[in-house]
Amino acid sequence: MPSTVTHLESALDGTRFEAGVLQTMHQDRPLWVRYDLDQAAALMSKERLAARAPGMWRYRELLPHTDEQTLVTLGEGPSPLLPAPRLGARLGLSRLLIKDESQLPTGSFKSRGMAMALTMASGFDVTTIALPSAGNAGGAAAAYGARAGLNVYVFMPADTPRINQLECLAAGAHTYVANGLINDCGALVKAGKSALGWFDLSTLKEPYRLEGKKTMGLELAEQCNWVLPDVIVYPTGGGTGLIAMWKAFQELKAMGWLESANMPRMVAVQADGCCPIVTAYEAGERFAAQHENAHTIASGIRVPAAVGDFMILDTVRESNGCAIAVAEDSIQRWMRDAIAAEGISICPETGACISALEALTQSGWIQPDERVVVLNTGAAQKYVEALAGDLPSIDLAAVDWKALAAATG
Amino acid sequence: MPSTVTHLESALDGTRFEAGVLQTMHQDRPLWVRYDLDQAAALMSKERLAARAPGMWRYRELLPHTDEQTLVTLGEGPSPLLPAPRLGARLGLSRLLIKDESQLPTGSFKSRGMAMALTMASGFDVTTIALPSAGNAGGAAAAYGARAGLNVYVFMPADTPRINQLECLAAGAHTYVANGLINDCGALVKAGKSALGWFDLSTLKEPYRLEGKKTMGLELAEQCNWVLPDVIVYPTGGGTGLIAMWKAFQELKAMGWLESANMPRMVAVQADGCCPIVTAYEAGERFAAQHENAHTIASGIRVPAAVGDFMILDTVRESNGCAIAVAEDSIQRWMRDAIAAEGISICPETGACISALEALTQSGWIQPDERVVVLNTGAAQKYVEALAGDLPSIDLAAVDWKALAAATG
Repeated sequence: MPSTVTHLESALDGTRFEAGVLQTMHQDRPLWVRYDLDQAAALMSKERLAARAPGMWRYRELLPHTDEQTLVTLGEGPSPLLPAPRLGARLGLSRLLIKDESQLPTGSFKSRGMAMALTMASGFDVTTIALPSAGNAGGAAAAYGARAGLNVYVFMPADTPRINQLECLAAGAHTYVANGLINDCGALVKAGKSALGWFDLSTLKEPYRLEGKKTMGLELAEQCNWVLPDVIVYPTGGGTGLIAMWKAFQELKAMGWLESANMPRMVAVQADGCCPIVTAYEAGERFAAQHENAHTIASGIRVPAAVGDFMILDTVRESNGCAIAVAEDSIQRWMRDAIAAEGISICPETGACISALEALTQSGWIQPDERVVVLNTGAAQKYVEALAGDLPSIDLAAVDWKALAAATG
Repeated sequence: MPSTVTHLESALDGTRFEAGVLQTMHQDRPLWVRYDLDQAAALMSKERLAARAPGMWRYRELLPHTDEQTLVTLGEGPSPLLPAPRLGARLGLSRLLIKDESQLPTGSFKSRGMAMALTMASGFDVTTIALPSAGNAGGAAAAYGARAGLNVYVFMPADTPRINQLECLAAGAHTYVANGLINDCGALVKAGKSALGWFDLSTLKEPYRLEGKKTMGLELAEQCNWVLPDVIVYPTGGGTGLIAMWKAFQELKAMGWLESANMPRMVAVQADGCCPIVTAYEAGERFAAQHENAHTIASGIRVPAAVGDFMILDTVRESNGCAIAVAEDSIQRWMRDAIAAEGISICPETGACISALEALTQSGWIQPDERVVVLNTGAAQKYVEALAGDLPSIDLAAVDWKALAAATG
């Protein structure tokens, strides 16, 4: 099947670029991939789609790569859309759903973007990729880089969760712990692009990770029978997923695929220790200043400056959504409460989202009967630091049955 | 849809039991769930199956619970069946496939069994479950127990991987670290059954975890277009998955669904530090003696005595398979090599399987062009101890570009 991609386009000023060659950014800002949506609509039908194998590649008319033989894939998705009735009841929401991206390869949503980006980079004969990562992106890049047979460099802040460091190492990536934040690591990668010819796979610094993440939105729309939810709550670091889901919905709308005119309000959630987007949102700005002394246990949203800041803010505003920061000490609490309530492997970043939901339902910004979808972007099991706790010991030679019985009250 | 289950049956002596009430074991040995396979064949068709939602519940005519409204589910599967060409080339195998169960809820294959067992236990109004676990079963039981709203007790040996301990705690299970092996923990659970009325969810001590695991085999058969592979390699602790896949294949055969008469040779892999099944296999015994001083880094197969030992050994022999033990020091090496070669998140237990494949191809027991499927039973990310390694530091103020360039040779 031929691709329906027509061109790439600067997100900043609309300048057009050719799609058939390796592109990165324009004026240090991201590029959109644009499609012939009429052609996509003509090629794709809901009946045809229903007959295809599950997973992100079923939406090929809206993806930049269509040859199944040359995909760099580890079997991505679908991630389930799970009802969360107990957690919903605690928040006063009757229709709360969690899209559980922890079930994707490498245990996080990063796999969608990396599968697409590595597929494209391989096609353009890239041999060495590099990126900074403070969380799950590194492990996903290392895994898909290994899958594609490429050299991979990953640079991580020292406080990156231990598992994220080790998964890069295990997949054979050249992994370094750096004395700086993710932005400092990003600057090193940029320098390596010039010095050693690395291909920079940083968030939004090439156009295709976004297109992979877009499948979260396409999949969600299909799971909702093409009637989008009222509110989507997303933990926002680099913001790719938020931007990408909104792009997916716009494309589906243009194709006439949505069964309702109702578009979701997109909510960008940050931690109060690192909330550049929220600060800009509240100040009415389109670009965000760097957040100084960034800190939060939710490592995936510890991003003090995002290259796609204006794209995040545009999405939030166009969708009548909002950007909201939550108290650091609420993140771990909500993560644990949500896991215990629903059995879903909620990561700290999504703990922050649930904290935001608590505030937004209490303030009335979200109504009790609205259909709300929260993205769970990674597996709790990857956050040994955030899960840390003390387990009681038991002496098998002297079991205290009374105490054991009392444990369940 | 009515269930096609006819009865339960002692795996030891064929005694029949009623299916509609809570059953556990017969003479301390497991029960099979039996179906009216003619009725299942009449109800199910390949066309109908193809139109159903993906995941383990699509095979409902061959499962004991058919009411979609009362499933205890976190969205199980399908797990992808991934080609492993680089790893295959290293082993001299042209058609090596890895079924990646690390992408299931809680990051392991245990979720299939627990989803089914908790669905059934809930239906029978069980309120408190308990089990011993040295690996991923505890976390899965805790998650599905939380999903079902039940009380969960988990007892773990002190050397259980840290993440497995923490995931139980996070899901709200009453989790205890015990001064003994998994069998000692199992004895405690058995005592708790009498003392406190716990429902014992230990491997094969109730009939339904096996039926959930069976969907690995059903799914594999469907992914292979109903032509089964030549060899299936499985890391064997309690052995439920091995037994269950073989049961799946027998049921499909009886239903006339298999497109080839060729049945796979089932290979049970253990570590030389804990290989009771291999010892019994080599001695020609049907029951296995307890392995003393059991040890291996592959915690999921650190099971010194399996209640389904004879079912494992029957499966291996009926299928013309084999049981094989691998050197402890090869496990971590193959785990890492496989992750780096394919980007797949290979767990230590599957590292042992790949070590076994090396031996079986070298001896000629497996031919180079045979179609071989290895089960990857859990995510490497859950094994911080097995992944442990040192990462180099980099000083962002004084980057040594020459050394960086040299890293990729």
